[in-house]
Formats: sequence, C-alpha cells, structure tokens
Amino acid sequence: MPSAPVAAAPAVHTPVHADSLTLHPDRFFDPDPAIRRAARAVYDETRALPLICPHGHVDPWLLANNAPFSEPTALLITPDHYIVRMLYSQGISMESLGIPTRDGVPVETDPRKIWQRFAEHFHLFRGTPTGVWFDHELHELFGVRVKLSGATASVIYDQIAERLTSPEFLPRALFEQFGIEVLATTDAAGDTLEAHQLLRASGWSGRVVPTFRPDAVFRLASPLWRSALADLEARYGSPITSYASFIDALVSRRAFFASLGATATDHAVVVPYTRRLDQPSRDRLFSAALEGTATADDQHAFEAHMLIEMACMSTEDGLVMQLHPGSLRDHHARVFDRFGTDKGADIPVVTEYTRNLHALLNEVGHDPRLTLILFTLDESAYARELAPLAGHYPAVRLGPPWWFHDSIEGMRRFREQTTETAGLYNTAGFNDDTRAFCSIPARHDLSRRMDANFLGGLVARHIIDLNDAQVLGHALAYDLARRTYRFDAPSAASPHTLREAR
Amino acid sequence: MPSAPVAAAPAVHTPVHADSLTLHPDRFFDPDPAIRRAARAVYDETRALPLICPHGHVDPWLLANNAPFSEPTALLITPDHYIVRMLYSQGISMESLGIPTRDGVPVETDPRKIWQRFAEHFHLFRGTPTGVWFDHELHELFGVRVKLSGATASVIYDQIAERLTSPEFLPRALFEQFGIEVLATTDAAGDTLEAHQLLRASGWSGRVVPTFRPDAVFRLASPLWRSALADLEARYGSPITSYASFIDALVSRRAFFASLGATATDHAVVVPYTRRLDQPSRDRLFSAALEGTATADDQHAFEAHMLIEMACMSTEDGLVMQLHPGSLRDHHARVFDRFGTDKGADIPVVTEYTRNLHALLNEVGHDPRLTLILFTLDESAYARELAPLAGHYPAVRLGPPWWFHDSIEGMRRFREQTTETAGLYNTAGFNDDTRAFCSIPARHDLSRRMDANFLGGLVARHIIDLNDAQVLGHALAYDLARRTYRFDAPSAASPHTLREAR
Amino acid sequence: MPSAPVAAAPAVHTPVHADSLTLHPDRFFDPDPAIRRAARAVYDETRALPLICPHGHVDPWLLANNAPFSEPTALLITPDHYIVRMLYSQGISMESLGIPTRDGVPVETDPRKIWQRFAEHFHLFRGTPTGVWFDHELHELFGVRVKLSGATASVIYDQIAERLTSPEFLPRALFEQFGIEVLATTDAAGDTLEAHQLLRASGWSGRVVPTFRPDAVFRLASPLWRSALADLEARYGSPITSYASFIDALVSRRAFFASLGATATDHAVVVPYTRRLDQPSRDRLFSAALEGTATADDQHAFEAHMLIEMACMSTEDGLVMQLHPGSLRDHHARVFDRFGTDKGADIPVVTEYTRNLHALLNEVGHDPRLTLILFTLDESAYARELAPLAGHYPAVRLGPPWWFHDSIEGMRRFREQTTETAGLYNTAGFNDDTRAFCSIPARHDLSRRMDANFLGGLVARHIIDLNDAQVLGHALAYDLARRTYRFDAPSAASPHTLREAR
Repeated sequence: MPSAPVAAAPAVHTPVHADSLTLHPDRFFDPDPAIRRAARAVYDETRALPLICPHGHVDPWLLANNAPFSEPTALLITPDHYIVRMLYSQGISMESLGIPTRDGVPVETDPRKIWQRFAEHFHLFRGTPTGVWFDHELHELFGVRVKLSGATASVIYDQIAERLTSPEFLPRALFEQFGIEVLATTDAAGDTLEAHQLLRASGWSGRVVPTFRPDAVFRLASPLWRSALADLEARYGSPITSYASFIDALVSRRAFFASLGATATDHAVVVPYTRRLDQPSRDRLFSAALEGTATADDQHAFEAHMLIEMACMSTEDGLVMQLHPGSLRDHHARVFDRFGTDKGADIPVVTEYTRNLHALLNEVGHDPRLTLILFTLDESAYARELAPLAGHYPAVRLGPPWWFHDSIEGMRRFREQTTETAGLYNTAGFNDDTRAFCSIPARHDLSRRMDANFLGGLVARHIIDLNDAQVLGHALAYDLARRTYRFDAPSAASPHTLREAR
Repeated sequence: MPSAPVAAAPAVHTPVHADSLTLHPDRFFDPDPAIRRAARAVYDETRALPLICPHGHVDPWLLANNAPFSEPTALLITPDHYIVRMLYSQGISMESLGIPTRDGVPVETDPRKIWQRFAEHFHLFRGTPTGVWFDHELHELFGVRVKLSGATASVIYDQIAERLTSPEFLPRALFEQFGIEVLATTDAAGDTLEAHQLLRASGWSGRVVPTFRPDAVFRLASPLWRSALADLEARYGSPITSYASFIDALVSRRAFFASLGATATDHAVVVPYTRRLDQPSRDRLFSAALEGTATADDQHAFEAHMLIEMACMSTEDGLVMQLHPGSLRDHHARVFDRFGTDKGADIPVVTEYTRNLHALLNEVGHDPRLTLILFTLDESAYARELAPLAGHYPAVRLGPPWWFHDSIEGMRRFREQTTETAGLYNTAGFNDDTRAFCSIPARHDLSRRMDANFLGGLVARHIIDLNDAQVLGHALAYDLARRTYRFDAPSAASPHTLREAR
Repeated sequence: MPSAPVAAAPAVHTPVHADSLTLHPDRFFDPDPAIRRAARAVYDETRALPLICPHGHVDPWLLANNAPFSEPTALLITPDHYIVRMLYSQGISMESLGIPTRDGVPVETDPRKIWQRFAEHFHLFRGTPTGVWFDHELHELFGVRVKLSGATASVIYDQIAERLTSPEFLPRALFEQFGIEVLATTDAAGDTLEAHQLLRASGWSGRVVPTFRPDAVFRLASPLWRSALADLEARYGSPITSYASFIDALVSRRAFFASLGATATDHAVVVPYTRRLDQPSRDRLFSAALEGTATADDQHAFEAHMLIEMACMSTEDGLVMQLHPGSLRDHHARVFDRFGTDKGADIPVVTEYTRNLHALLNEVGHDPRLTLILFTLDESAYARELAPLAGHYPAVRLGPPWWFHDSIEGMRRFREQTTETAGLYNTAGFNDDTRAFCSIPARHDLSRRMDANFLGGLVARHIIDLNDAQVLGHALAYDLARRTYRFDAPSAASPHTLREAR
C-alpha cells in the first residue's frame, strides 16, 4: 500500500511516544473520511457553545462555599462511583480505596496510596467512558501530558495537587472556565436550599438552580419516610397530618424551589406505573403511612398516583417533569450495609412505559403546559415505546442516554433507535447527570462529538445536508436543553432578576 | 470503474444551491467506498424490478373509481398518520391540520393553510423516513426541484396541484407508472369486496387483490363485535348462531376472497397468544358473545384459539397467514374520542413469541401447506425469538421491518439481527404497508437501497461475493415477496384467468 | 483528495474465478482503511495463539478412541444442528438428511445423497456463521479450492473422504494441528468419565478435561430424574436417600471431576432464578422427588436453591461456575418425539438477571473464591443487566456471545453493548461451545478477527491506542479464557502431574 492519503491514515501511525497523553482532534468520530469531514464541520459549530447542565448531582455547597479542592484522590477517585465499581468488580476492596464505612470502621486514609492503586488499574477503563473522561480531565484541566499508569501516578498526583492550590481551580472559577451557562442540582423536597440561598446572596453571577426531587416523601413504606416527611414539615412550617396538607406542602415547596430558579422536578421510581387514586384511597394510604402501617403495595399505589399529581402540578407551576425509572438501587446488601448508597450496586431492570404511563398521559399528555422528560436504563424501550410516545404526545420529550448509556456506543444507539420515529426535536439535549464536577466539560464534549458524528453520518449518506446538520448540531448541543428545561422562559428567574425583585 | 475517485467525497462539498432539492444517486448507502461500490452493483440489478406489494392499506376504491386526486393536502398530508403524529407531538393541533372530528366539530378546511403549516414544520422530519419518502415523492413524482419550506410551500403546492389534473396522475396510470406487479389491500371479513369486483369487471389489467382480515369478528368483548358479525352474516347469507356456523362463514368468506385473487390473511392482536379450546369452551364463549356477556378474558381465549383455526384453514385453502402483534391501539383516549383510529397514538408493547406461538406451531408449524409470516414492533425479539423460530419451523417466515421500523436504521437492525440465525431465505421480502399510495415507490426504493447496502457490507467484509450478493439482492427485492405470498402459484388467479373462468 | 487508492478497493474486483473458494486475508474486518489497518495489526498478534476451549460439547470418546472419522457426511452434516435446522426450516425433511429416528423408522442412509442435498442448498447459509465456518473448514482443513454447490458436491466429497483416511486426520492429530492447549467437555454429574480416565491413562499429552453439569439431577419433576439420580448414586457408591446424602454425593463428584482436571461446572436453566430454601423445605422437596410427586413448582424452587448451593461449593472447591439460562428446549414436540433433543428446536426466551440472581449474588457475589460466568440468549440484557452486574460484583464475568449470537454481528453487539460498562477485563474470552470438532479453528479464528476488528475500531476512533489494542487483543484471544477458567492455576492438575501423583 504505497501511497494512501486517506484522511484517517495517521491514526495508527501517530509518531507520538507510547506513553504520552494526547487527545486526538478527531477522537470518537467514525474514521470514514466523508463522515469525519461532516462531523468536524458540525462539531466546529458546537464545541465552544456554553454548557447547559439541566440535570446533575453536583453538591451546591461546592459552589456556595467556593473552597479549594483538597487533593486529587478526594476530588477525582473516592466520590466517583463509576470508578469505584469497576475497581471493586476486579477484586479491589472498597476499604482499600478509602470509601468510608457507615459504622466508622477505619479504611485507607492515605490519598497517595489510593491514587497509586487506581493508576495501576487504569487499564481496566480502556474502552469505557470513564477512561476517556478521565484522560480529558487530565489533559485539558490539569495539563497532564503523560499517560496515567503505576509508573506515572506519583508525578501526576503532584501535578494535579499543585494546580488545585491555585485560584483558577476554585469551584466558581472552574464553573466560569467551563463555560457553564446554568447548572441544576438535585435536591430533596425537604431540603432547606440554604446553599442555593447563599449562592444568590453572594452576588456571584453563576446561575445555579435547584431541582425538586420529592421521591423520599412518596415512599410510604420506607423506614426513611418519617424523617423525610419531618424535613418537609419543617420547611413547610405546619404539621402535615393529612393527604390534603401533604399536597399543600408540596405545592408550597415547588413554589419555593421555583423562586430560587428551579425549572424542573425529578422523579425516580423502579416502575413508572401511574394510576390515579380516588379521594378515600389517598386519605387511607396517607393515614396508614402516618401510622407506620403502609405496605409495599400501598407505596406502589401511592407513587403511581403522585406521579400524576406531580404532572398536574407541573401544568400549574410550569416546572418541567423528569422521570428516571428502572434502577433497582442497592442491589448488593453487603455493600449497602457497609458503605451506603451510590457505590455502584444499582442495577437496571426491564422497564415498561406504554401501559405504565397510560393513565398519566391520558390525563395531561396533551397539555402544552406540561413537559415530561422520559429517561431509561432499558434501551429496548427506545424504539419500541419511548420514540413512539414522544412522537405522539405533545408533553413528552426523550431525555439523553442515561448513566450506563451516557457513552459513545450508548449515544449512538439512542440516536439510531429514536430519531426515525421521534425526530430530533422531541429529544431534550444533553444532561451530564454527574456528581463529578470536573468531568462536566469532558462529558459535554463527548456528547457534542457523538451528535456531530451522528449528524455527519446522515450527511454522508445524503439523508440530510450539511446546513441542516449544523442547525441540528446547534440544537442538540445547546438549544434543545435550554428550551426543553425552560431556561429561556421569562418566568424562569435569573439570580439577578430575583435579587432585584426582592 | 478504472480508478475509483471515491464517490463519497463530493457529498459535503456539493456545489448545489442550498435550497435546491436533489436526490443523491448514492443516498442511504454507507459512505465507505468498498461498501458503496458493492451496494451500487446490487442496486443496479434491483432498482427497476417490478414492485410486489403484498401487504398494505391502499383503499381499493381509489383504483376502482380511478378518479383524479383532489389537491395536494388531501392527497399527501391529512391521511398520513406518520405526518400528523409528528406535527401533533410538537404542539400543532389536529384541528389545525384539518383532521375531521367524529362529532363534526369544524376544523381547518383550507388546504393551502394546512400545507403551509406542514411546510413550515418540515424540519421536524429531518432524519426520519417520512422526510426522505416525502422528498422522493416531491422530486420523482411531482418534479419539484426546490426544498419544501415555509418560503416554497405555495409554489410547490401549485406545482403539485397542476400535475394532479393531468391524466398521467390518475390512480391507475400511477399504478402502472410505479411498476406495480401486484397490490394487496386489507379488507374486513365482512367486506363486500365490491371495489375488487368492480376492478375485475373493469377490464383493467392491474392486479389488485384483497386480503382477508377477520380481527373484528374475533373480538368478542368489543362493542363493535355485533356490527362486525352482522356484516359477516350478511355476506355469508345465513344466520350465524353458533360457533359451527361462524366457522363455516369464515371458510366461505376465505374462499370468496381467494376467488378475487387473495393469497393471504392478516391478523392483528396485542399478544400473539395461541391455545386451542375444546369444543364446549368454543361454544360457550361464542354464545356468551352472542348474549353480549363475553369478557376481556373470554376474548383473549377466543382469539388464541382462532389464530390456530386460521392456521389450520390456511393448510386447507393455501392462504398465507400474516401475524401483526404488539400494537396497543388508540393509547390516547382523548385523540381517539375526538378523531378516531389511526391518528398516530398506537404505541407498541413488549411482545413474546416463543411461548405464545407454541401451541400453533406445534400443531401446524411443520406443515408445508402453511406459510406464517411473523411481524414485530418489538425489535428485541428479532435475534432472541423470531430468527430462531424462522430458522427451525418450515412454516415460519419473517416479515420485513414493520411500521416504526420501516426505516433506514430499522432495516439495518432487522438484517443484522436476523440474517445470521434465520438466513435471508426465511425472510419474506418487502411490504410497503402503506395507505399513502403515492409513497409506494419511495418506500420500495428505500428498501432496495438498504438491502443493497446490507449485502454490499457483506461483500466488503468478504462474507459473500458480489455474484451471490446480486442473486440475494434480486431475491430480497422481488422473488421472496412473490414466492412467499404465493403470487407465483398457478392457483393464485389473475384477473384475466378469473374472468375467463367465469 | 486527488487520487485515493483505497485499501479496500480490490475487494469487489477480485479477479478470481467465480467458483473458486478463497478465504480473503481481511475477511470480516470493516472495510474502512483505518479500522482494517489496526484490526490487522491486532490480529497479527493473536492469529497463531494456542486455542483455549473452556466450554464445549465435543465427545471425549472421540479423542479417547482416536479412531478415524468415517466419511464427510457423518463428520460434518448429520451431527451439526445448525445445519440441520436451517435445511429443515426450508422444507427439507430430517429423514432425508439421515437424522436417526428414536423409534428406528428408517431414514436416508446414503451419505453421498445427503451430502448432495446439503450442497444444493448451501446458498441458504450465505451470510450465516455456519456458512463462513464451513468454508473455512473446507479450505483450511481439507484443502478444497472450489465453492461447494450441487455441481461440485461429489468432487469435494471424494476429496474430504480421501483426506479422512490419512493419519493426520485422526482426532488427536487434528487436536494438535489445531493448536488446542486445553479442551473442556461437558459431562453429566453421574457420568463415569471413563473416556477421560482412558485419555489420561493413554499417555497422550493433549489436555482434555471434563466439566461438571448436574442439571439432570436438579430437575425433580422430570421423568428422567430417577435415572439421572440412579447414575449419580452408582458413581457415588452409596444410596442417596435424603437431601443430605444428595449434597454429599455432589461434593464427592465435583472432587472426582476436579481430579480429572475439571476447572468448571455448568448449569442450564430456563429462568436463572435463585433463592435459598430452608432446611425443612429442602428435605420436603427432595423427598417428594423420591416419591415421584414433585411438581414443576417444586422443581423451580429446588433449582433456585441448588444454584446457590453450587455457588457455595465453588467457593470451597474452586470450580468456576457457568450459567447458561434462557433456552426453551425442544419447543417442537413433533421433532423431539421423532428425533430427540438438539435438533434445532431450542428457542430462546426473555431472560431476567437482576432480580433472579439477587439471592445468589448477595450470598457469594463478593467472594474472591467464586467466579460466576453469565451467558445469555437475550441480548437485551447485555447493556441493561449483565454489564452492570459484571461491572460491580467481583465474582461475575460475562461469557462470550452464545449459540445464535456466536456470529459476526453477535460478537459486535456483545462488545458494543458490554464494554463501556463492564470493561473488557470482566469478560471471559472466547468459548467455541461446539460439538463439531472440525469447526473449532474456524470458530476461534472468527472470534479473534471480530475482537481485532472491534479493537481496531477503538483505535481508529482514538479511544485507545494501538499498543493498548494489541495487549487487549491478546487478552481477549487467550489470557482471559485461560485465567477466568483457572487453567493457569497450580491446583488445576495437568494430565502429567496427575499421573505422577497416583
């Protein structure tokens, strides 16, 4: 093969040193020259757009306090359940990774040892999104230019640690450097939102808004229900002694969340079952919960009813409704008992939407005041149920590939399996959905590249033209998230207008 | 092809005006030169083959009357539920699209306004099969050379309207121009088939045949059952007062359908459950229905039994049996109540075949006189259940990707997920399955291109050679549909032989 | 891009004669030059590695007896249920293929006629793994250089028959020629393992080991249970009159299997349900079975319990546990009654893992002494359940694409749907899973090519670099199977050390 000036050619023959860390400008794009050329042309239009972060789990205190990050391991390893689960799956104990135990049994405390352990196993992440996000963070955020491995762990640790001491690495400085236009956190119904109030009072211009997540107060049979209700009661300021006062408390809290900029609610259930209860049943179930006698079946019925109530409230107050079903949380009791939630042991289950959402959609699915964003961990529902639902009901939009599917192949499958039935305009743009603040740019960049690549594939197959692809690329990277989550609405108070209004 | 200056290259740089409508000769093919070259070589053999249309929903009166089409909106927009659902999903009311209400409440009546509204939202269809079918129709059928948009809507409307007045745009002329070799309609068991009789009496040589679809008379618990039975009774000519006379009526009607050229039956159920009832149960259920006391469970059991009966009758009369399960019809009661069926609110559900079809297949799945064509809206069954069933049972064939999956990516998934287990010869060729008469050529062309592209991919990966691919391409585009639906059988009366026989 | 001599170009224009059989050196690789170049570079490192065959169904007597193969049809056609089912699905009777009937009704006995019949229908296998495996065998093993067809059937038959008479085609010679490092068979709990004992006594250096498969003695309600138990009892040497003695017999047999080199157990169930029974329930169910009164529900509960017992025993004796769920065996009663099992009528069903495996994984999923390899026929579980489970539980590994999915597209889907969540190191390498001894090299070669191609795709998209890809390629082709199945463990006795130890 003497002279092959194929565009993709340099890929394999890159003369860089094997241990140097580089980010290829065409990474994640299909190597086909026609696709790659169009993908680049789309990505050039979207790469620098501001980041809309309408759903995630960043701790608002991070930005309220704006304190320096302590050191690399506490920032990048210990709190990232994607990293912890993979290491654990290969026999590395959580104790040795410094994951704190609930009963206080001591675990590894030396962050350098943990970092070294992670680095020695970084090969486990080859071909995973965690691997490419991490390389992106190392390269773009921390200026690392050698690959992470056991041999380089210590040097890289020092390099990051040193950077973390500089003012440009304070959380708010990073927020601005990342180009975040708005960041939504996720907050319990009974949360004080004190961090959000402080953020607004601080005069900082960054837009950080809460999201109303009332799951805990709907779980009537959970041992944690009483304390969740007590929090709600405390914020509400009156006793919640009946279903009626419960509803009133929720309405009131939603208004408070909205007053701090919230534009959305979020709901996690195992099964997205919806069914309206009659008045006597509601009262009976709520009383049973107050008496501590509610059963799992009671909770199932109550959650099914409350999803409809939430949708109805959304038609009144305009909060966009997000539904994240299908994760069986804390599958591994041993891990949960010792280390608590969010340790990588949440396992998806088959999720049915067509029959389960029938009641909710028949009540308010036609209502232009409602936006209901559906997520899934069960990709078999994409083409079968979710795209047909979104392609009919005016209220329904499809959330981006979630969690395990927030990945190169996951994004490809999402677009390939939903676009032809739902179109692109019934999707809701990207969510980074992360608690790993420093990974936000990496995640958005990956998403923008994959959408550019998908659109480039349509161009290369002459399904759309490049002009259309660029318009669509802009929509997928920015406009759709902004519009679907109503960050463009005049009613969505910005920090400044709110402060002025007070 | 001496020196291959890669075809895909100009794609992005096409110097055509951004607003000009063109159909790229390589559209839908993978851009890889090796795949594209083989795909072209296969498509060159299939593009001009006659169209076999063995399953669809064209109204036979269209061809029986052969009246001119009225105007573009009534022809292309209002009756197309793919178009209506997408516009509705984005907040455009059905009233504003001129969809007639069941209670006669007035809706938009100006076709130009509706056309303009559609054109202004045509961007919603980017990347969808509706988008590419529509462009194909505009370009190939109506000679449109500018892209449809709000700005061009009016000019294009006029251009189409003018064409519709010419004799070449009469339905029968189009039928011939499209190269349709045979077109099957779908007709209720109690239909008079008057249009089909008139077609035969007309002396026109086009082959248009009915398909026997008895679903309505199997739905014992439906409020519409009595009237469906009354129609069947009227055609049968005798009272249907028992299960035995019901069976006799069905046998008789099947023979009548066959006498008008029918080669197939069609059956739609939510769940493809099959189970034989004993004689007392059949009688009991049928009596309950006559008394108006049949329950949903009764209907479920009766439908499960009747599918087996239909298969058995097929072994006698040779009618090919089609099974279309898994659509939950009229999911949105508000839309159904106001506008009726087929308005885009039919949503698929998980569909199980292995256990559900066990009884039917154990009774007649080995019988060479039976052909049972299975369709699905649940793609997860392709590799898991459908390909293994088709790869074993002599009676079973796989229908083409159906409805939401009749698309570029849907066709790709179908071939990729069924071929390796079922082979290509256990599939049934293409169905356009459309009520949109003018979209027939576009749909067949898309299918032929995608099959050529799939085969081209096998050639480029050296799994088959190009000669084999061309033979297979011919089979997928023409032979398999013709043979599977028995249009090549001497017993399948053509209009001419039938007329002679009378 | 002036003149692009694209690497893939010669594919279509290969000037070989249409009837000549060739194996293209780049077969199965994507045609994209960047992918292909990287795929080749990976495959070059793996193509000649020894074959690890940790799961399959080769008859150990084949190697124990080392008798010459009789003739081509008995070797290649009749026993291959992949071939038989496809021919049967197209209307070719099993009788005409020489499949013996259970009642001794005569069938075709002329192997040349059967071979001819197969050859005339070889086009049915175009695009299937059977087709490419068969071509590989013809070309590489038997030196055939013309394509198989009706016209060439007889010549090819003679050529193979002639080769089969030479000493290089004795089973042990082929084993060595294939480069098999270790071959595991699959054997009932009550098997004498006489063939394995003879193999060891023979002094031959080939490593052939049994696998402990006790399914039959867990199926309490099966009519075959008594005889399976009787076999177990005979091997155990004591009466099995209680659950306790049953457990003791199993422990004893597992030790015996291990003494002959076994490193694994294998378990086939329809539903992978696991749940521990209390002591009284175990005793009650086992007694019911002894009395012949066990029901299907009893069996379901007992199997669910025994899977946990097996996992616990594995933590003691170190045998790797394989779980193959989701096949509904002998779906076609007519075929089973006439021809018995393994005739292509085993049809997959939906398979749930998250809830079903909860009990087992909560008991021993964290235990480093356990390796549990999960297989599936339901690909929808790959990304939804299996990858998340493997990406958390230390004991869990994912088996390679199984049965219908042991194919080009099946392998692609497996990697694309599991890698990003589970990583590559939580997968178990390749299994050929075959009873067709001569197809072993073809199957491993296909797998190595597809893994090289997958990794090449990651390189071409700059997700990993070529060095990493080569390391990973080696792992997928050799290291992971060897390590996961513990063939590298010092405790896994080799024939020689065993003989010395006696």
